[in-house]
Order: sequence, then C-alpha cells, then structure tokens
Amino acid sequence: MRNGLIVSISGPSGVGKGTVIDKLREMFPECGRSVSVTSRSPRGQEKDGVEYFFRSKEEFEKLIEEGEIIEYDQYVGNYYGTPLTPLLKMSRGGQSVLLDLTVAGSLALKEKFDETVTIFLLPPSMEELRSRLSGRGTESEELVEKRMAEAKGEIAQAVRFDYVVTNHQVEQAAEEIAAIMKAENCRYERSSDAVETLLAE
Amino acid sequence: MRNGLIVSISGPSGVGKGTVIDKLREMFPECGRSVSVTSRSPRGQEKDGVEYFFRSKEEFEKLIEEGEIIEYDQYVGNYYGTPLTPLLKMSRGGQSVLLDLTVAGSLALKEKFDETVTIFLLPPSMEELRSRLSGRGTESEELVEKRMAEAKGEIAQAVRFDYVVTNHQVEQAAEEIAAIMKAENCRYERSSDAVETLLAE
Repeated sequence: MRNGLIVSISGPSGVGKGTVIDKLREMFPECGRSVSVTSRSPRGQEKDGVEYFFRSKEEFEKLIEEGEIIEYDQYVGNYYGTPLTPLLKMSRGGQSVLLDLTVAGSLALKEKFDETVTIFLLPPSMEELRSRLSGRGTESEELVEKRMAEAKGEIAQAVRFDYVVTNHQVEQAAEEIAAIMKAENCRYERSSDAVETLLAE
Repeated sequence: MRNGLIVSISGPSGVGKGTVIDKLREMFPECGRSVSVTSRSPRGQEKDGVEYFFRSKEEFEKLIEEGEIIEYDQYVGNYYGTPLTPLLKMSRGGQSVLLDLTVAGSLALKEKFDETVTIFLLPPSMEELRSRLSGRGTESEELVEKRMAEAKGEIAQAVRFDYVVTNHQVEQAAEEIAAIMKAENCRYERSSDAVETLLAE
C-alpha cells in the first residue's frame, strides 16, 4: 500500500492559513488531521484521542524529551502539543494528513520525517498582510506592528520549505495546494509500486 | 522574470503519449514545443526555424559533437534531432516547453539541464499495453513482441524520472501532468522571487 502524504502548511499570522486549510478539508474530506496532546484534564464528554490525547504533565514532559512532540505551547499552565507517532501511523495506513503548524513546527517535522511535504503560504504583499491584520479589528496598532515584524522573520524562512503558495484568493491558493498534493503522489519515490507491478507481470 | 518549465514526457510505444500530449497542448496552448533540426533540404514552403531548422550534414555532426543535440535519429540518410539551445531560450524567456522525447532523450536532457521536469507515462498493465499495440492493427505479432520487450526495458528506467503517471484515461493522465506543472511552479526554487519581493518591501 502507498503511504499517505504528510502535508504541513505554515505562514505568518494574518495570511489566511485557517481559511485555506478549511477549504482544503472540504476538497479532501478523507485527509486526516492531527489530534493534539494536552496536559489539561478532560472536560465534559471529551474523550482521549478524540478532542485531545490527555496526558499528565510528567508524561507530556517525557514525550518532549523523547522527541515525540513536534511543537508545543503552554497556555494557562498546561501543555498543548502536536505528537509525531499518530501522523506516521495515519500515513503508513495510506491516509494523507493535512497539518496546520507554525513555521518552526513544519521545519521540525521535516527534520524528523523527511518525506513531509512543507508548504509556506505567502501574502500577496506586506501591505495586504497589514490590512488583513488591522482588518480583524481585534489587534491594537502596536500588536499589528509586532505581527508584521514576526511575519518578515518567518517569510525569510520560506527558503527551507518545499513549496511556496501566494494566497491571493482562498480558492486559488487551495487549488495550488491540491495540485501539489496530486503531483507529490506522482513522484517516482511514491509511485514506484506501479512500476514494480508492471515489471513483475 | 520566472523561467518557464521544461517538461519532458516519455513512455513506451503504445502507451498513448501522443494523445496525452495533444490534450496537454489544448490545456496549455501557450506552451512552446521543440522544432527539430534536420540535415534534409527544405521542401516547398518550409521555412528554417518553423517546420525544422535546416542544417547541412556537416553542421549537424558538429552540433552533435558540441553536445547541442539531445537526441537524434537517421531516416533515409538524413539526420533528425532535438536541439538544446532553443529550449533553454524559451525557458529563460518565461515560456514553458512541453517535449515528447524518447526515454534516453529525457534522461540526456535532465543530465544537461537539471531543472528539466521528467515524466514517465506508464500503461495501466502490460496486458493493456499489448492490446493497445495489437489494436493498431498495423504491427505484426512479431513486432508487437519486440515492442513489449522494449517496453519492459524502458519501464525499468522509470526510476530515473522525477514523476510517473499511469495513463488509465487521456483526461486523467493529462490532469495529473497539469497538476505536476502547477506544483513545479510553486517549488521554492522557482518561486523565490515572490519571497524576495516581500522581504524587500
């Protein structure tokens, strides 16, 4: 069986990554997604492995040490992170996985698992990015400036990604990423089974 | 300006390469094509650089020596070949080029010009290939067997291509190749100008 693709999409805050990924999930409903690990306790009907993988703080720190957490953050005293093994399991089971990771997260994943397809989502211009950030209406002028500075630093890292896609419009960006996924499935390394089957006939 | 892609498609006789490439030319009418060089004399209204580049036998042999001919053949005492420089000129002028080359030709071009995107077109099965070859009705049983043996040898070379596409149906194969072309344009190496423009803003 052919491995599923692991596709990781990153981009600066305000670039519209969430909307593009939502569009891609509509186009590829069969794609898996990452379930985060957290050290907070389950609430209400939350089930382990569905909303989150629930682990103790000590277990979480052990996962970090073992290199099992691709990226993590702390929020109100609890850890939230993206675990590696479930992604590899989905891929080996033939299911493609679509991930929304920070720039550092995509690069860490690529380092751990070279077959990851990394895509950097760019704004059409820095002015457009600023207007998208200001347009949210929720960010102070100061915070917009901070995000703009962070964006420049992140965009400078695009050189370490496999692909860059400019988000002029959601549909155009999602279609370019869909083409990348289709093309990656045709790469010789991923389609060698078709060749071997023919040669064995 | 961004370089145009140089896309070279190869596959065994009978796989349906011509039909798939015709479909692609309909989809991408802006794509350039190779004009062959020949040592035969122009006929009627034929113009140099339109139907063929017309060169003397000596000039042709000099081009071969200079590594300027990607692949060539002799037919009724004349040379016919695919020249390298016009392809590079089209690409540098921003025009993508779609080529129909032999397996050896694609590999030679990739060696000379690493940015070439090489695609190997596979039959759905060897049985289907045999039936397509026999179905032509123009080939003797013996010739079909010869083509089948050649096909196996060529398919074994698919490992040296960037992509493999199985030609189940013309539209599906052409769409997969279209996705490859779209994706290749998004590769960081080909889109770094977008990143540089943003960083310079």
